[in-house]
Amino acid sequence: MRREESFHMTPEEFRRHGRAVIDWIADYWERVERLPVLSQVRPGEIRAALPASPPTEGEPFETLLHDVESVILPGVTHWQSPNFFAFFPANTSGPAILGELLAAGLGVQGMLWLTSPACTELETHVLDWLVEMFALPESFRSGSTGGGVIQDSASSATLCALLAARERATGFHSNESGCDGRLVAYASTQAHSSVEKAVAIAGLGRANLHLVEVDSAFAMRPEALSARVMEDRRAGLLPCFVCATVGTTSSNGLDPLRAIGTICREQGLWLHVDAAMAGTAAICPEFRHILDGLELADSYCFNPHKWMFTNFDCDCFWVADRAALVRTFSILPEYLKNRATESGAVIDYRDWQVPLGRRFRALKLWFVVRSYGVRGLQHHVRRHVELAQEFASWVEASGRFELAARPPLNLVCFRHRGGDALNRDLLDRVNNSGALFITQTMLDGRFTLRFCVGQTRTEERHVEAAWRKIQAVADELELET
Amino acid sequence: MRREESFHMTPEEFRRHGRAVIDWIADYWERVERLPVLSQVRPGEIRAALPASPPTEGEPFETLLHDVESVILPGVTHWQSPNFFAFFPANTSGPAILGELLAAGLGVQGMLWLTSPACTELETHVLDWLVEMFALPESFRSGSTGGGVIQDSASSATLCALLAARERATGFHSNESGCDGRLVAYASTQAHSSVEKAVAIAGLGRANLHLVEVDSAFAMRPEALSARVMEDRRAGLLPCFVCATVGTTSSNGLDPLRAIGTICREQGLWLHVDAAMAGTAAICPEFRHILDGLELADSYCFNPHKWMFTNFDCDCFWVADRAALVRTFSILPEYLKNRATESGAVIDYRDWQVPLGRRFRALKLWFVVRSYGVRGLQHHVRRHVELAQEFASWVEASGRFELAARPPLNLVCFRHRGGDALNRDLLDRVNNSGALFITQTMLDGRFTLRFCVGQTRTEERHVEAAWRKIQAVADELELET
Repeated sequence: MRREESFHMTPEEFRRHGRAVIDWIADYWERVERLPVLSQVRPGEIRAALPASPPTEGEPFETLLHDVESVILPGVTHWQSPNFFAFFPANTSGPAILGELLAAGLGVQGMLWLTSPACTELETHVLDWLVEMFALPESFRSGSTGGGVIQDSASSATLCALLAARERATGFHSNESGCDGRLVAYASTQAHSSVEKAVAIAGLGRANLHLVEVDSAFAMRPEALSARVMEDRRAGLLPCFVCATVGTTSSNGLDPLRAIGTICREQGLWLHVDAAMAGTAAICPEFRHILDGLELADSYCFNPHKWMFTNFDCDCFWVADRAALVRTFSILPEYLKNRATESGAVIDYRDWQVPLGRRFRALKLWFVVRSYGVRGLQHHVRRHVELAQEFASWVEASGRFELAARPPLNLVCFRHRGGDALNRDLLDRVNNSGALFITQTMLDGRFTLRFCVGQTRTEERHVEAAWRKIQAVADELELET
Repeated sequence: MRREESFHMTPEEFRRHGRAVIDWIADYWERVERLPVLSQVRPGEIRAALPASPPTEGEPFETLLHDVESVILPGVTHWQSPNFFAFFPANTSGPAILGELLAAGLGVQGMLWLTSPACTELETHVLDWLVEMFALPESFRSGSTGGGVIQDSASSATLCALLAARERATGFHSNESGCDGRLVAYASTQAHSSVEKAVAIAGLGRANLHLVEVDSAFAMRPEALSARVMEDRRAGLLPCFVCATVGTTSSNGLDPLRAIGTICREQGLWLHVDAAMAGTAAICPEFRHILDGLELADSYCFNPHKWMFTNFDCDCFWVADRAALVRTFSILPEYLKNRATESGAVIDYRDWQVPLGRRFRALKLWFVVRSYGVRGLQHHVRRHVELAQEFASWVEASGRFELAARPPLNLVCFRHRGGDALNRDLLDRVNNSGALFITQTMLDGRFTLRFCVGQTRTEERHVEAAWRKIQAVADELELET
């Protein structure tokens, strides 16, 4: 048997280089808290360090890893730093990374059950586990009328939910003959921008996303929703979809699901619940009240890739009626037909999402749940909430800072009493120091700082150091003004 | 400084378990060609081996890896087997897997330039490299009016292209006020099912995807496209989008881009070119004719995750006018604002795609290009085409088999002369043997077998063994009938 010429990495080379990458990552964890959290490079600086043209001849792997260190790392904003308090977290963990590695090594594409039964069945199974772990409604179980699936992001989950809602409301007419401009969707003024994006993508038009006002805790006012739906019906429009948020991006506001769900049932509207970050909290019984009324929802999602130690991408999305979702997406060309699909005994997840292809993402989620156990996950989630509440108490006690909203979980919205300009300067100066990274929002028309505790390795000392730095910068700014 | 209780994997544990996973993958490569390619499990068999409930306490990593071997592996259809000739490949390689591992380890979320400048700039840079490597139109370069971005799949790229086309055709009215039911899209009868899916998602309605007939080589007939567009205009419809395919899924048919592009320019239609699998061939100058006329296209995509040794997901998508794409997707809520975005000097890729979040996928593509070099990639692509052509010559010489279409590249469509029923039995029996995996399509109304050569480690001996097995099964079936 003759050996063919090959440019592939051999298994032996892979063992050697693979160990080097594993060690690089372990070393990275050990030093990441000393690196500036927000990358300090200027636009174009990374590109300027890269050759203009691709190489004709292959290069040794050692060179690549060297360039990761010297060229790439300075351009990294360290989401895995324990001093990362910006946006929402995208935390990760050893088991998740190794699950992702195994998925890449197996290299299966799980578009159909047939194309790797384990890829589909493990996903279904772990999402059933999560129904139990989070006390989600029984209708979300695969053995009931619904089921769960992993999407890349909450944006995609919201889009899928909206599309199924659009089809249910029009008897699948929109899928077949197109939208007619009368469909209306609802979310609160605090809902994530992905709802507006989904409404545009699905052909409803952004003007047909009607934003419902919120109360003083930034939660949707159910009576305002109800009034708007009635008004729209009188105007000849066709209300079809409500997105309620559990833990808004700006302030972690909690929409009242039971009241909203009751309206949706009465009005025949699809209720989607987006708990992208905050949903993880429901692993602890004491925080489960945030999902009260979820049994009235048609679909639900949260992101283990935000706060549950599972590397991006991993959004878990459940529907109560899988038939509506599958019918929305299903197309079966000849080249994808197979006896398993025809038997009706299997799930083909390609009909549960926008893309056709899919990675084996269930592996990393399975690894996380099994490595931590439910108790380990609960421990770390509780600890993050405690640390955020502690930070909030310091804000309140400080005199010169104030809370912009009551922090229900792990996000603290606060501001210096010195006004928007001072807070903007404070944000820039804190972030440019590299010591920590926080971001901002507008609440009640005022510039507000967001401090979210959810990074895997954030401990009390990091939160304390962050607070000291924020105070020190406030001292400087107060002296300057 | 007190140590907090932790359930996290320590860096030292990560080194140990990481090495075990790296070795597992290297071992897997060494044995994968001896495993049955198509998983032999029955529906529900994998789930039956998994505990009904998640664990309360964490489990040792060794247990997880043991279960991957004993529970998961039997449910894997081996896309990385050199005996995988089904669908289109989803091949991978050592450098790609290690790039994915590093991306998971860094755990950055590249929605904005700011959230990791290197994630954005490396992606822009490598996609510019690919413009050079594949001799793509200059307008696709980031320094011109266009630019490239990595999507999860060609399905998503097609959807993005269609949405930008929808907005360009309606002056962004569809985005704002919704679709009006008059928009029409076009593709050939051989186009991928993702075009129909995109048309449904975007609110045009499947009935408004008009399928254009093909010639004897399964390529779109430009005069038929032209006639249909005229007819639709006369009927008061609004033609907006054409998807041409370079290398159709059924037969690798090559739509004539120059003729189609000329019509699209005359008619003001957005031309998207989908070369998901075949596009990789254009790295070799002798195959570059398949993209002749691409400079007339508004957008283009191909998937390094199919045939270019880069693990799924990695679809490269270029537009000639990035402004139309960005305007289609852009929404800037307060919590994502930052000075870099406001400066206009950076790319924020969240405005180039459906989801908000994104992984650092450029790392693996960069690793592949640098590890193989252009010459290494050319070598393996050429070799796959040679092997497919060799297989086709055996089919032609066999007497009892025939080619269903001329194979332009690495996909051979063929059938036994004994009719559909015999070919169906042949497919089942070959696949159930585990020796290789092939799939089917319908061409000219007849059941046709597809044999695609593109797996990373497929060598001549695997193609020879596959042909021997197919002949042996044909012998059996001929005796039985």
